[in-house]
Amino acid sequence: MKVQNYRQVKAMKAAPGVTMRVVAGPEEKAPTFVMRVFEIESGCSTPFHTHPWEHEMFVVKGRATLKSGSAEKPLQEGDAVMVLPGERHGVFNTGEEMLTMICVVPLVDGKMPGTMSTD
Amino acid sequence: MKVQNYRQVKAMKAAPGVTMRVVAGPEEKAPTFVMRVFEIESGCSTPFHTHPWEHEMFVVKGRATLKSGSAEKPLQEGDAVMVLPGERHGVFNTGEEMLTMICVVPLVDGKMPGTMSTD
Repeated sequence: MKVQNYRQVKAMKAAPGVTMRVVAGPEEKAPTFVMRVFEIESGCSTPFHTHPWEHEMFVVKGRATLKSGSAEKPLQEGDAVMVLPGERHGVFNTGEEMLTMICVVPLVDGKMPGTMSTD
Repeated sequence: MKVQNYRQVKAMKAAPGVTMRVVAGPEEKAPTFVMRVFEIESGCSTPFHTHPWEHEMFVVKGRATLKSGSAEKPLQEGDAVMVLPGERHGVFNTGEEMLTMICVVPLVDGKMPGTMSTD
């Protein structure tokens, strides 16, 4: 059993103004899925992208807009998001403060699948 | 793509003073794992239990104690927890306020595995 505060986990740059921390993954011997914490600065976003695996997300803090094709949905604290495999999506921090969100992905061949590839 | 605030999802009683909301699961066509939000009242806890699947947890709000055998670890906002399959565990809200935490489990045979079975 491992406990670690996400702020003490090494942050990786995922995109301009976007950091990712793997808080439960291969290093913690996670068997099936990986939990990451993303922080997105105001005015920044994850690339608009798609991939053959799902996202399950949870907004811990902040406000954002979730974009999918021509659709846009507002996101706020306490919102849970199900992005199915193949659904195009991007999270845009349209608020004034940092957006903090959990994003869980499945392990693919025992590894965290590549993230942030745009198409 | 589905967005729902966890507060609008039907709460199920998981134990005395403990509610569980499935925010991304079979109903949302989740392929691999299920995201749930637990709220544990001050002084209450999940049963001390074990099961052959993992938990990946994240403390959104509050303070608690994670118990495992003879070990105890404090939990606070921002803490991520990896509980491996077979590790005995229980979360005790030792704080004054409601504990809110995410807990992700794998789908087993396409269903959310039984929870809260004590041993």
